[in-house]
Amino acid sequence: MTAIILDQIAGKLPLWVEDSRKCSSEGRVASYIPELSKAPTEALGIHLLDGSGRSASAGDCGLSFTMQSISKVFTLILALIENGEEAVFHKVGMEPTGDNFNSMLKLELVRPGIPFNPLINAGAIAISSLIGGRNAEEKSARTLQFFRSLAGNDSLECDEDVRRSESETANLNRSMAYLLKDNGVLEGDVEEVLAVYFHHCSISVTCADLARMALVLAFDGVDPIKGERLIPRRYVQIAKTFMTTCGMYNASGEFAIQVGLPAKSGVSGGILTLVPGQYGIGVVGPALNAKGNSIAGVQLLETMSRELDLSMF
Amino acid sequence: MTAIILDQIAGKLPLWVEDSRKCSSEGRVASYIPELSKAPTEALGIHLLDGSGRSASAGDCGLSFTMQSISKVFTLILALIENGEEAVFHKVGMEPTGDNFNSMLKLELVRPGIPFNPLINAGAIAISSLIGGRNAEEKSARTLQFFRSLAGNDSLECDEDVRRSESETANLNRSMAYLLKDNGVLEGDVEEVLAVYFHHCSISVTCADLARMALVLAFDGVDPIKGERLIPRRYVQIAKTFMTTCGMYNASGEFAIQVGLPAKSGVSGGILTLVPGQYGIGVVGPALNAKGNSIAGVQLLETMSRELDLSMF
Amino acid sequence: MTAIILDQIAGKLPLWVEDSRKCSSEGRVASYIPELSKAPTEALGIHLLDGSGRSASAGDCGLSFTMQSISKVFTLILALIENGEEAVFHKVGMEPTGDNFNSMLKLELVRPGIPFNPLINAGAIAISSLIGGRNAEEKSARTLQFFRSLAGNDSLECDEDVRRSESETANLNRSMAYLLKDNGVLEGDVEEVLAVYFHHCSISVTCADLARMALVLAFDGVDPIKGERLIPRRYVQIAKTFMTTCGMYNASGEFAIQVGLPAKSGVSGGILTLVPGQYGIGVVGPALNAKGNSIAGVQLLETMSRELDLSMF
Amino acid sequence: MTAIILDQIAGKLPLWVEDSRKCSSEGRVASYIPELSKAPTEALGIHLLDGSGRSASAGDCGLSFTMQSISKVFTLILALIENGEEAVFHKVGMEPTGDNFNSMLKLELVRPGIPFNPLINAGAIAISSLIGGRNAEEKSARTLQFFRSLAGNDSLECDEDVRRSESETANLNRSMAYLLKDNGVLEGDVEEVLAVYFHHCSISVTCADLARMALVLAFDGVDPIKGERLIPRRYVQIAKTFMTTCGMYNASGEFAIQVGLPAKSGVSGGILTLVPGQYGIGVVGPALNAKGNSIAGVQLLETMSRELDLSMF
Repeated sequence: MTAIILDQIAGKLPLWVEDSRKCSSEGRVASYIPELSKAPTEALGIHLLDGSGRSASAGDCGLSFTMQSISKVFTLILALIENGEEAVFHKVGMEPTGDNFNSMLKLELVRPGIPFNPLINAGAIAISSLIGGRNAEEKSARTLQFFRSLAGNDSLECDEDVRRSESETANLNRSMAYLLKDNGVLEGDVEEVLAVYFHHCSISVTCADLARMALVLAFDGVDPIKGERLIPRRYVQIAKTFMTTCGMYNASGEFAIQVGLPAKSGVSGGILTLVPGQYGIGVVGPALNAKGNSIAGVQLLETMSRELDLSMF
Repeated sequence: MTAIILDQIAGKLPLWVEDSRKCSSEGRVASYIPELSKAPTEALGIHLLDGSGRSASAGDCGLSFTMQSISKVFTLILALIENGEEAVFHKVGMEPTGDNFNSMLKLELVRPGIPFNPLINAGAIAISSLIGGRNAEEKSARTLQFFRSLAGNDSLECDEDVRRSESETANLNRSMAYLLKDNGVLEGDVEEVLAVYFHHCSISVTCADLARMALVLAFDGVDPIKGERLIPRRYVQIAKTFMTTCGMYNASGEFAIQVGLPAKSGVSGGILTLVPGQYGIGVVGPALNAKGNSIAGVQLLETMSRELDLSMF
Repeated sequence: MTAIILDQIAGKLPLWVEDSRKCSSEGRVASYIPELSKAPTEALGIHLLDGSGRSASAGDCGLSFTMQSISKVFTLILALIENGEEAVFHKVGMEPTGDNFNSMLKLELVRPGIPFNPLINAGAIAISSLIGGRNAEEKSARTLQFFRSLAGNDSLECDEDVRRSESETANLNRSMAYLLKDNGVLEGDVEEVLAVYFHHCSISVTCADLARMALVLAFDGVDPIKGERLIPRRYVQIAKTFMTTCGMYNASGEFAIQVGLPAKSGVSGGILTLVPGQYGIGVVGPALNAKGNSIAGVQLLETMSRELDLSMF
Repeated sequence: MTAIILDQIAGKLPLWVEDSRKCSSEGRVASYIPELSKAPTEALGIHLLDGSGRSASAGDCGLSFTMQSISKVFTLILALIENGEEAVFHKVGMEPTGDNFNSMLKLELVRPGIPFNPLINAGAIAISSLIGGRNAEEKSARTLQFFRSLAGNDSLECDEDVRRSESETANLNRSMAYLLKDNGVLEGDVEEVLAVYFHHCSISVTCADLARMALVLAFDGVDPIKGERLIPRRYVQIAKTFMTTCGMYNASGEFAIQVGLPAKSGVSGGILTLVPGQYGIGVVGPALNAKGNSIAGVQLLETMSRELDLSMF
């Protein structure tokens, strides 16, 4: 029966994609990282994958893009695996902030000055400092290896041009990292932590990769295609909860109301989302709305959720 | 089979209640509304109700208490029924704030100056201004009638002592209401809106009443006992989403991680929560933690969620 | 010799006024109090008065306008006379804020939640609550009497239309007053305090009145024309210091750099300033800049200070 | 006659110093820069210098200490000399902030994101970026040379231990500098700017040095002892205005009320102040109050201002 439903979805996807693509013109490709500004404004693609390995896709699915903030879900999981809940939540909180993803207000205003959650920039930098390894190279290699295993794709690589571009222009992230250091949140060398952070943000994927990674979350940590547990269930639960409350920056509340699925977006225009127990989904649409989410991607997911009644709530 | 599970839960509830009750001594009964400070610090009670009308309860279930912020879930629903989504979301946003429930920071800092969501005080006051009726009395009567129908209890009443106490000491809510008025959010007379707000916050209930109201949400707007639809499904979906992202003040994120159920708390120590498709749950424990939630009530729900694997995520 | 200098100034004033008047078109008359919006945009007038009673004036000196925030200097002095320094500085601080004059941020963010200084709105409301009298009428009468004595003008009156307009639209001031009440800063009834506040803000004056009031400050509390001490010197010192650090809203720092004289502005476009030991000065120009100060008035005072080398620094 | 007055002051100084020294025990030596924490808590010294070169001193005048924030007055002047008013006020504003000296709130909240004034940390870092020179060494050398000329002391040197300690622990200043860079305020390399900043903060002086530097400001830019103009008068005026409105961190307003003299403090416990046209004054007292000013130093200056009627207001 699932196969039938997937076929039905597959039939409608192209129409929904073309419909949603139109609003791309109201969005803007991220320009604060120069390399990102080269992405095609009008692109929109989606890839769905179910537990038996069947897939449906539409639009610009061939597009490669960097994970950016989407990577934060998986570094959080890796940090949980390596350090446990207690150590992780000593460094980051569990609350949505209502502020921009790169805001530093609460780091100054609210004691203790730990980031409110692991999916805003400050929190993700704190998480990057928890990845094991003797130096930035080792930590980055370990992260990449983990991402490859989740994506079932050994050829995932960091996009060096983006990584360099990001590192060179990351004055705001540097500012945040030094503030975290001053607040006693970051262990180790600030530049080394940032190197790890820029690396995992710059890992290049396609919608199919995101869908596969999301599928593991949809099946509570088991890759249903290989039948292999990759993540303890509790850590998937934590990750999906954060994706629901904080995954779409300070538009997470609206996304929860209008789509109702755990999701994480990146400023490259990617969105990873999932239907629990059913699908992993990868979307890309580089034109962003004012909150930093793919404008056409969000529109597409709203349509799908409404038409297919996908909300968890 | 559900009957068996309910029996099993019923068997364990007293133990969990007694265990959780211990932490009451670390909390404090709300004192900013003088009448609330009379509540018994050590009290803790819980009532579960399933779709066939079977229930389980333990602890101080006889305790009456005012709904306080719990009422905000239902005034939101009533406002949606009376005005539709567009009108409601013209007055309030959909985002968690990370700030205290009575903070005014974002009303000054973020344009447009509408409350971030309908469950913080500012948002709930804005929602109160949307309830229909020619004057405060009519609006209050209509609200009470709606609450009675959801609770299946025609004897629900406003606690006049609490209402008066609240109105007399509500300088901060008054401040907020006038700021909303200045921001163009409130229609009509500020004192009339506040009268409606204080009234619904002061409606007196027991855990059983909360459980019944929650049951309607758990069954997507249908009272499963009477087999009667009381709320359109979409509005229940909206309410449950807000309960998940913003229902426990600025501890909502942590509650989502540790409990993983839609819930709403009040400073009287009440918590309304639900297991989708299964149970409505009412809890009361007047001693509050620093964020304003029942300290023992949260502890009890964490235990239950972990032991019974109740998280939605 | 002073007579000669005054003659020289008198000769140049008309030119400076006409020159400064031009920038009125870049400003906007205050509209948040409807009655104020009726003021003539292009008007600009100035009146200087020296210690021997000689005066010079130019431009639209016949214009009557309400004192608005300028009154705050004199209610501060009256509160000091009636209550002493200790009681006054128990209710308000001594620091400039950098925020808008009607901001409430620091009242929420900084403990204890007293207004940072007596010249921002929140601080002036706190000061109004310190004026003696059995009710709002008596307090207002006492304030008016004090202002009349300083202006040497027994016909000063409150402009009832402005007062009413102000009271009816003062949602933000009401919000602030209730927040002060909640913070424990305001004694007595909030509406009574506001009535006193709106009354003194609405006292109607001309540039000549302001110049005479300023002259008393310029001569350390003595009216040099009558030879009569009206204010203890220490309280004049306090007032002049606040005028220097906080008198021009959050453009006080720039005014101190560019003009360098103690001054206080109002949203009616009035500015009261003084040259210590020499002149009292009243200016009016209803078109305001973005910070709420008379755009042409500030320009005129900058020109005069530069040309006549008037800065205290 | 001045000689007589100076003799009178000299006679009273030891008593005032001993009296003020007592409150040192309520303050705390700065510890965030490890090297500073070695300063003697109970020390208090003062040095006055008049225009004819006569001096009076009392207490621990032999103590050497680093200038810290006091240096900001003179880098501001140097930046004005080298770049002119327009260029400088393109990078920093003219307003007091009401916030802590190391706050970043307004850099995020208020557009354009330039520091509010040149005497808070963010502003001083922006000013450091305006000092001319091909690299940090040249800029530092030029700054030191300027300071030496003002102090009439060619042996002024940077304290390398303090400079190193400061640079190593300056995570918050680094955070601020990168935020300024992101806001487009800082030209050039962030670490180079910070090197210049740490260097001038670490220049070691005595009270006599501060008094001599202050004397130049008291005489509007002319060293009255050598009869040589060292600073254009306008820039001294700007500096003295900032010292009055922002010189004592977020206690500047209170200092203006209680002392009424242009002043600048540093976290080493130094205070530079002056009586216009009369004295340059240097004070040191390492124990700080909660706002970061020398607790005994402020007490001493309050006593002197009250007893000698020194306030400008």
